[in-house]
Amino acid sequence: MSLLQQLVDSLSGGSVEVIDLTSPLSENTPVIQLPPPFANTQSFTRRVVSRYDDKGPAWFWHDLSLGEHVGTHFDAPIHWITGKDGLDVSQVPVHHLVAPAVVIDKSKECAENPDFLLEVEHIQQWQQEHGPIPRGSWLLFRTGWDARAGDPKAFLNVDESGSHTPGVSVECAKWLAEEVPIVGIGVETVGTDAGLAGSFDPPFPCHAFLLGAGKYGLTQLANLSKLPPKGALLIVAPLPIVGGTGSPARVLALVER
Amino acid sequence: MSLLQQLVDSLSGGSVEVIDLTSPLSENTPVIQLPPPFANTQSFTRRVVSRYDDKGPAWFWHDLSLGEHVGTHFDAPIHWITGKDGLDVSQVPVHHLVAPAVVIDKSKECAENPDFLLEVEHIQQWQQEHGPIPRGSWLLFRTGWDARAGDPKAFLNVDESGSHTPGVSVECAKWLAEEVPIVGIGVETVGTDAGLAGSFDPPFPCHAFLLGAGKYGLTQLANLSKLPPKGALLIVAPLPIVGGTGSPARVLALVER
Ligand SMILES: [Mn+2]
Ligand SMILES: [Mn+2]
Repeated sequence: MSLLQQLVDSLSGGSVEVIDLTSPLSENTPVIQLPPPFANTQSFTRRVVSRYDDKGPAWFWHDLSLGEHVGTHFDAPIHWITGKDGLDVSQVPVHHLVAPAVVIDKSKECAENPDFLLEVEHIQQWQQEHGPIPRGSWLLFRTGWDARAGDPKAFLNVDESGSHTPGVSVECAKWLAEEVPIVGIGVETVGTDAGLAGSFDPPFPCHAFLLGAGKYGLTQLANLSKLPPKGALLIVAPLPIVGGTGSPARVLALVER
Repeated sequence: MSLLQQLVDSLSGGSVEVIDLTSPLSENTPVIQLPPPFANTQSFTRRVVSRYDDKGPAWFWHDLSLGEHVGTHFDAPIHWITGKDGLDVSQVPVHHLVAPAVVIDKSKECAENPDFLLEVEHIQQWQQEHGPIPRGSWLLFRTGWDARAGDPKAFLNVDESGSHTPGVSVECAKWLAEEVPIVGIGVETVGTDAGLAGSFDPPFPCHAFLLGAGKYGLTQLANLSKLPPKGALLIVAPLPIVGGTGSPARVLALVER
């Protein structure tokens, strides 16, 4: 029997499961808030075109407005100045969109410290336990932040000193970009960088180093708790916006039971 | 070795290929044009939020406006009045989004007759050759129309008598909705119905019967010529818009060589 037929049978039989890693998209979807003088992006809005009425007696449809970087979304290299000569979101090779995923879980640490940063040694510890990160993988960083996604205030966690959400240290971001054979990093937070990363040197190191190295970002993921540390197959599905710096994306995973 | 590890190895080795069935999304994406008094949908537009400038020194991003039913997109049951008590696009079960695909190729017939309609007998002929359509499949209807997608005029093919693009007959749409165990139909044209289907009885039979039966539509697909008649695994990835009647979607297929 062909491999794909075996996969179809396993999907029907339940020994391979499809997990939805995408946050629902709506007017309540939290959006990053940058301080002045920076411009901010459009949150999700919709307008009815017709709803079984004079403007369309049998059909209902909406027009949408939203930023490329709203909700569960994909960061392409050209999103950052360091990647400006790199790929736009429509140019990302499809084999980077169907690729293995590894999951590093620091949800306990992030519950204690919302400013938790992933360090090189955490990934080295993971590799000691699970073996080397396979070439061409996505690294998914579980922080428990998806539990806050229904409450934009708790999700962005802003106080007078800034936004307190977990991220990646400068050293670790540089190492992931230059030394680890991942295609990108996926997170549960509003962006791949920590809430306070605007004050790091360089600012926003995940964006600066990974996108500069032609790697990708993936944000506002849900249900990472349902994935094993290794062995899941990730399906990353941004819209192929020509010249786009990113895109809202559907993200699914196949997991074998 | 686990099945997913075999799949990862086959993807790396090239014996399983990822095919992108999505049309690029841009200001040139053709959009359906309904006659008065019906309202029409917003075509794709974008606005720069910042581009490595004062509004965002290190980053480039856009805001987007577009209809739910623009470009390669998904029709959910609530898009049509017959399916108004059915699922919105965010409620579609994920196992319907990763499912087998069968392809029926009538590109030769459509080149001769742009008003070509798929009939019950065409699908019965396909089944005589290839066996029954597997339960839970997507039926993909190849018409050759993707070759026109770069030219909105040729793609919509409007003259004084209306839009001349292929579709599905009333009888066949009813039969696909009620008798054939597919989850949905995918097409290369601007919508799942023929260009002239507004004058059919009932109007827009693919929408009326399939969405009314809780099935789905998928439009403006590309590269169906690269799929076998059966054996491909389809990955359909609309955005999970809460209450959405549809969504622009990324659509990929896995094909075994
Ligand atoms: Mn982003
Ligand atoms: Mn539609």
